[in-house]
Amino acid sequence: MSNNERSYHHGDLRETLIRTSLILISEAGLANFSVSRVAKRAGVSSGAPYRHFPDRESLLLATGIAFLTGLTLNMRTATDKAGNDPVDRLASTAGAYVLYTIDQYVGVELFIALQGAQFTEFHERKREMIDFLFSLVQEAEPHATWSQIVELLEAHLAVSQGFSDMYQQGMFSHMKLSNGEIATRATVAARHLIKGWGMR
Amino acid sequence: MSNNERSYHHGDLRETLIRTSLILISEAGLANFSVSRVAKRAGVSSGAPYRHFPDRESLLLATGIAFLTGLTLNMRTATDKAGNDPVDRLASTAGAYVLYTIDQYVGVELFIALQGAQFTEFHERKREMIDFLFSLVQEAEPHATWSQIVELLEAHLAVSQGFSDMYQQGMFSHMKLSNGEIATRATVAARHLIKGWGMR
Repeated sequence: MSNNERSYHHGDLRETLIRTSLILISEAGLANFSVSRVAKRAGVSSGAPYRHFPDRESLLLATGIAFLTGLTLNMRTATDKAGNDPVDRLASTAGAYVLYTIDQYVGVELFIALQGAQFTEFHERKREMIDFLFSLVQEAEPHATWSQIVELLEAHLAVSQGFSDMYQQGMFSHMKLSNGEIATRATVAARHLIKGWGMR
Repeated sequence: MSNNERSYHHGDLRETLIRTSLILISEAGLANFSVSRVAKRAGVSSGAPYRHFPDRESLLLATGIAFLTGLTLNMRTATDKAGNDPVDRLASTAGAYVLYTIDQYVGVELFIALQGAQFTEFHERKREMIDFLFSLVQEAEPHATWSQIVELLEAHLAVSQGFSDMYQQGMFSHMKLSNGEIATRATVAARHLIKGWGMR
């Protein structure tokens, strides 16, 4: 047992393995994801992860679920803080997305990587997040058809992912913006998008 | 001289090396970019690129310039086709960005990778592209201040990059959309963003 391992409490190691998984997936993609690489990067013995995750799939699933659960929670918190205006509430999820994905090092690639997988629980959590976003669009645009909701959500996610991606690639590094400032810019942009969409 | 090499005319090999560079940068980032890897991937001998590019820097510079020149040209063509409405003209550059970056396999990461480099010609071409986009924003929003123009351009680029990124990661693959359809969605989203921004 390495020093690193000894210092982890049971729950800490599990969380560290999930967080390390997110970092590795963002750096090298799913094709290069393995339990042994995660263990090595986390500085624990190759056997240590198996106490929590019997195989690659279960670590991946836990990572995907942790990511989605955290993202949805952050979006819900943001909408609560945004007040009562439905446009502000929907727009606030762009900022929450940017903050959370910057913090977790990944973004839309994790959804996409897992979308073909047969993980019932992952798809349930994803469904919950999408239902939540759908309900926000319906509040903001009560007369929108299903395909209009999809169109607006897609554009809203593009703004969110675009800000997150540009930031993670270093586009804003010369501006020395905080994560919170980037998130605010994304929220403002999303608000313009939603308002413009409502005028069409 | 390999068979591949023999079949390239002078200009074709140069173009192939640039295109291969774009693919390699998008796959593995700038840190893993080298003339020998480009040669190997293009199926030519390791010495072949040196007829066109004396070193790594010159190949990188040519790649960056080819990318920017092509992108700016595609944006100009899109605005010409978009008609006279300044909002449509600006919005059309989002679609042009998406089409071009999907076709070239890269996007904003190439700008960012080269932005610290001391390549005068690259920065001149980048300046030309940004000046062009600035002039489009000024047509659409004649009373915008400099910082407002920057804010709108940043959001506009986020929409563009977000669509390009989601597409390149496979988000739209189950919808079986053509590149042109994705580009149209980006243009429509950008138009909503610009219209909403104008109402603020």
